[in-house]
Amino acid sequence: MGASEVIEKSRIYLDHAATSWPKPEAVYVAMDRYAREIGAAAGRGDYRAANVASEVVSSCRRSLMRLVNALTADQIAFFSNGTAALNAAIFGVVRPGDHVVASVIEHNSVLRPLEELRARGVIQLDIVGCDRSGRVDVEQMIDRIRDETALVALAHGSNVTGAVQNVAFVGECVRRSNALLLCDAAQTLGYLPIDVRQMNVDLLAAPGHKGACGPLGTGMLYVSSKASARLRPTCFGGTGSISESLQMPTRMPEMLEAGNLNIPAIAGWNAGLGYLQSRDPVQTTQARLELCKQLAAHFNSVDYGFAILGNELPIASIVFDKIDSGLVGSLLNSEHAIDVRCGMHCAAMVHDSIRLTRLDRTGTQGEYSGTLRLSAGHATSLVEIDQAASAIDDLVSELTQ
Amino acid sequence: MGASEVIEKSRIYLDHAATSWPKPEAVYVAMDRYAREIGAAAGRGDYRAANVASEVVSSCRRSLMRLVNALTADQIAFFSNGTAALNAAIFGVVRPGDHVVASVIEHNSVLRPLEELRARGVIQLDIVGCDRSGRVDVEQMIDRIRDETALVALAHGSNVTGAVQNVAFVGECVRRSNALLLCDAAQTLGYLPIDVRQMNVDLLAAPGHKGACGPLGTGMLYVSSKASARLRPTCFGGTGSISESLQMPTRMPEMLEAGNLNIPAIAGWNAGLGYLQSRDPVQTTQARLELCKQLAAHFNSVDYGFAILGNELPIASIVFDKIDSGLVGSLLNSEHAIDVRCGMHCAAMVHDSIRLTRLDRTGTQGEYSGTLRLSAGHATSLVEIDQAASAIDDLVSELTQ
Repeated sequence: MGASEVIEKSRIYLDHAATSWPKPEAVYVAMDRYAREIGAAAGRGDYRAANVASEVVSSCRRSLMRLVNALTADQIAFFSNGTAALNAAIFGVVRPGDHVVASVIEHNSVLRPLEELRARGVIQLDIVGCDRSGRVDVEQMIDRIRDETALVALAHGSNVTGAVQNVAFVGECVRRSNALLLCDAAQTLGYLPIDVRQMNVDLLAAPGHKGACGPLGTGMLYVSSKASARLRPTCFGGTGSISESLQMPTRMPEMLEAGNLNIPAIAGWNAGLGYLQSRDPVQTTQARLELCKQLAAHFNSVDYGFAILGNELPIASIVFDKIDSGLVGSLLNSEHAIDVRCGMHCAAMVHDSIRLTRLDRTGTQGEYSGTLRLSAGHATSLVEIDQAASAIDDLVSELTQ
Repeated sequence: MGASEVIEKSRIYLDHAATSWPKPEAVYVAMDRYAREIGAAAGRGDYRAANVASEVVSSCRRSLMRLVNALTADQIAFFSNGTAALNAAIFGVVRPGDHVVASVIEHNSVLRPLEELRARGVIQLDIVGCDRSGRVDVEQMIDRIRDETALVALAHGSNVTGAVQNVAFVGECVRRSNALLLCDAAQTLGYLPIDVRQMNVDLLAAPGHKGACGPLGTGMLYVSSKASARLRPTCFGGTGSISESLQMPTRMPEMLEAGNLNIPAIAGWNAGLGYLQSRDPVQTTQARLELCKQLAAHFNSVDYGFAILGNELPIASIVFDKIDSGLVGSLLNSEHAIDVRCGMHCAAMVHDSIRLTRLDRTGTQGEYSGTLRLSAGHATSLVEIDQAASAIDDLVSELTQ
């Protein structure tokens, strides 16, 4: 992998909404140590290394139980990423004739499974809009719930606008209905406090490799007891239990965990969760809010376009009036060693509200190339945000001269 | 992970059929280096680290294309393990009313998805038997193919008996039918030569973390052009392409790769494949066959029970006449630091033929606790097999005194 030599030491990484980097040192150490010294698969042998594997999995499951305040560790199932967890939740609970409510801010990992089910004629789908800052109309979301509504899907935080949604408000209503509440916590797990019971979330899906400090290759799904009564497996295979049966186990978490788990990654995730727990939560919150303020200070009012900013998540999505966002992003990297992401961010529907904002501002939608997104994380310093803002200013000046 | 201290340095690892260990040093180095120095997600940004991520993925895809002799690298999709790949293949090609033929030697990662589809009334399922050494009746498999047969599933090698199946013989017949041939190469990828075109395999699924020298968290599915015309995605989400669309891309490999790929693991796998390619294939084959011979020399004729042995794969499954296999396995580990696996090995149906063998031998089925399986790999020495055989002899003497 000689290509890594091209990565500058002074690199400023602002793509935490895709995956966080760097991870806490303990994550690298735990992954490498597991892979080198233990190596075994979990739940499939009765030798010491295999038992260590099982302990690693159990320990990480308990850490996640605490992180989201689940009732038991068995309510947490492991997945290889957030998308796999969301698909298992959606295809696992939806039945023909069901009605589903979702929002336009959802990631394609929610919208695409739902659209597939709608196109196949399995479900009826209502998609609720958001305002220009990306805040979903949760009142409308609640209004759409009816007797046949089996699922309400609401992302906790938007990966494009950084807007955090009032999930608990929707949860309180869904709790009293037949429906289950699915919350995609991809952008919030490890950043914002999450309490699945207080928020009345039935299914909480998230990757481990963003705010939750895990490595790529990790994901989780929390399943409430209301949801587990309805959930069916969607992936079938060896579970290391009742091997003589042609059916999957019916209890959590085995019913969702067919095939070998990625134990080195789970060992790394567990170390990352340990790092998170070791931090003072007040300081962690303060650091995050300062990143948000710094982004706002630079981008709240710019003369080259506009930005949509997260108040609670350090995400800024910039739309340029006259310049292609991809060009700015590309030059930011080649000239300033700053990593950002440009385009649609795998969220097909939220851009309509951003386009409308542009229409208001410029009187024309013009060419829309998506947004340039800066996303900060636990490892980001305020200075890095200052540097990125200066670099964008410089580039815009050059490009519009 | 202080528990790793319990693992002896002199540990003899004979559970390669579950996952191989240790991996080539280059695998650990590549994983750690990617995670520490690059970190980025693939296909989702236009900065150097993200481009390195995409290069790692492309390079590993090309390595796999060469390993199985696919026509193009795009015929290879990545999965988090073999089970996910098999489920994507089975649920991706089967339609209501289809007929499927499989064999009793299949792993639960094939049997359980098929049984689920049968129980739901989606497919008709024919399961063909094997002889007492685990060899599937491929003539009968071919006889069962009819116009409605959409899929024929045959594992290349059994994870319980080590028997290698004549996949090419079945492939030649399937090729001339409407059906697709799905081959589970979990036990053979990286051990035996695989040529998907010569064998007429349409769908070849395998984990990366066994013979193919990759880390846990890796898997692949090869899709022929005949299969890709019929295959539909089963997992929906962000692909880093056509993000503005609510539909998945329709071309390989994106159609199967929703969500973030596990790039550190793929970087490790690519290094492992590089190690495999760097070895002299004649010597690799010779080493494997010597392991088989050594297992046969010790276990072909034992007085405490019987063994079913792989001729081409170094797997030995031992059934004891009077002792619980789990007890022997547990003592092997606690007293001799030898890692083996006992039980059903997530293969529900092949044990009937093993039970019949026992019935012939002892006149009674007695208590059947599955088999004690020794499985060797690239890193196993002949001396380790000798030590395991001696240890088993000693334990049996102690337990039957």
